[in-house]
Amino acid sequence: MKLLITGGAGFIGARLARTLLARGELAGRAIERLVLADLVAAPDDLRADPRVQVRVGTVLELAEQLNGERFDGVFHLASAVSSECEADFELGLRSNLDSTRALLDALRAAGNAPRLVFSSSVAVFGSDPALPLPAVVRDDTLPTPQSSYGVQKFICEQLVADYTRKGFIDGRVARLMTVSVRPGRPNGAASSFLSGIIREPLAGQEAVCPVSPDTEVALASPANTIAGLIAVFEASREAFGGRTALNLPALTVRVQDMLDALESVGGSQARSLVRFVPDDTIARIVGSWPARFESPRGERLGLKADTDFRSIVEQYLRDFPAAVRPA
Amino acid sequence: MKLLITGGAGFIGARLARTLLARGELAGRAIERLVLADLVAAPDDLRADPRVQVRVGTVLELAEQLNGERFDGVFHLASAVSSECEADFELGLRSNLDSTRALLDALRAAGNAPRLVFSSSVAVFGSDPALPLPAVVRDDTLPTPQSSYGVQKFICEQLVADYTRKGFIDGRVARLMTVSVRPGRPNGAASSFLSGIIREPLAGQEAVCPVSPDTEVALASPANTIAGLIAVFEASREAFGGRTALNLPALTVRVQDMLDALESVGGSQARSLVRFVPDDTIARIVGSWPARFESPRGERLGLKADTDFRSIVEQYLRDFPAAVRPA
Repeated sequence: MKLLITGGAGFIGARLARTLLARGELAGRAIERLVLADLVAAPDDLRADPRVQVRVGTVLELAEQLNGERFDGVFHLASAVSSECEADFELGLRSNLDSTRALLDALRAAGNAPRLVFSSSVAVFGSDPALPLPAVVRDDTLPTPQSSYGVQKFICEQLVADYTRKGFIDGRVARLMTVSVRPGRPNGAASSFLSGIIREPLAGQEAVCPVSPDTEVALASPANTIAGLIAVFEASREAFGGRTALNLPALTVRVQDMLDALESVGGSQARSLVRFVPDDTIARIVGSWPARFESPRGERLGLKADTDFRSIVEQYLRDFPAAVRPA
Repeated sequence: MKLLITGGAGFIGARLARTLLARGELAGRAIERLVLADLVAAPDDLRADPRVQVRVGTVLELAEQLNGERFDGVFHLASAVSSECEADFELGLRSNLDSTRALLDALRAAGNAPRLVFSSSVAVFGSDPALPLPAVVRDDTLPTPQSSYGVQKFICEQLVADYTRKGFIDGRVARLMTVSVRPGRPNGAASSFLSGIIREPLAGQEAVCPVSPDTEVALASPANTIAGLIAVFEASREAFGGRTALNLPALTVRVQDMLDALESVGGSQARSLVRFVPDDTIARIVGSWPARFESPRGERLGLKADTDFRSIVEQYLRDFPAAVRPA
């Protein structure tokens, strides 16, 4: 089968590509071709695989060039991130809404109704003054997004549902949770510290935690996020159930629990590298995110949240041993 | 103040225009100019009013020509209807999604953040296999639209909310219920009979009812629909509460109740003109619509459902005496 991953050079996209190449098959069919499309070329290890083809450019450019090209499956992960969309309104609409629509139209034009997984986000949930977010987010909780990024993701959810209803694609939408522990450098995202307070101390560096230790957050490990995307792709239409977006499973932890896990893995020395420097802006943003989920739809698909945060830290150690400085 | 009504030549748009011109003011400000934009020119009685200016063309053309023109208020009612959107997917996206976005961008470019009421629809609600519609639709019920029209309306709700959050407009979304009794001729809409079974017998003509008499539906009279649009426009931001779409009030009636009201107003002769000819397709569509609502947000704005269906029939008799044949 021939697959396309947009955002295929990003952290999640490249990891999904590695997992798929290692499996060799998806939904019972051998993977013969894996097209990784992104603004930059995918990492070298992926490009070395003869099944991989790299395409560099925007999703709008990609869609324009498809010209009836058929894929058996698509993971549409490419997206402008939330801080970009908030800073540049047009960029968000173009990179998220227009791009997704152009991709869906190109897939429709190919005429083979390919299976497609679209990565939406927990950022569709926010607290509207008229309709505060409930304490527990369920499968039928109304998203009232409070950011352009969340609005654009939620709009794309609707497009994927309707292109699917019309039979143009076989689309499924998975809402990703905050992924932790991410490798690499801190970024401008409000959620950046949720990886940083683990990653930096394990590398022997200081990290700043801008929220109180009893703040609750909903997280998923990189491996569990990938497993969720694959399970949603492989589900039968009946098992997925309907065309409404599905919340991937989330582990609810307090920041305190995260630091306990850090200490149990990296020692008290690692933990001592985390300083609490309250930042009201970040605390307000993080506090507006849902922290508790009940997701029977995901459970029926066999999706499970990570069991505990310690196992997530251990996953990071296994995946990125070079990023860790021995205590 | 200067107002714009898109769809200003349609049944609801023209009626809203008449009501506004008769009031002479909106939100405490005198109406000096009322621009009625539609595919066709507004009716003669409206064009005779010196405050009215007529613009003929699509919303896309209108938006392109605005060129920084400022309005103090906008009622954006223009829309392709559900059967058109279902028959022609591109037309729906263009007439509903692209047009609304172009209008919002034109209003944003004017720079005065005008107040805007967008008419969404009860058609955003549908029953998804994974998430069947609850028996009672509440203010926070998740729409899972099952038509392109519903999807496009729901997407535009999100755009209006985000353009409002960004301060580009002061937008509010009202979801209209099925309006009955509409004057004129039957149309292709599945809901057409909900006006036809009253209108035709009162005119001395036969009407066909395609659903069983115990079918429950949610209706609003034309006058109450207009009152809802005006109340949503006039509400303070705080009173409207947030940026999530608001369900206008609905009267829940059985078809049986509608026919009882017809008989009490038009006599047993009128009622005898209604024949039951079951149509499974229409019955399934109508049965998928929500019939019961609980709408505390609307109640807090002072919005009330019509008290009973008899008063709706009487409203029709007052409004369209020429359409009624004396018994």
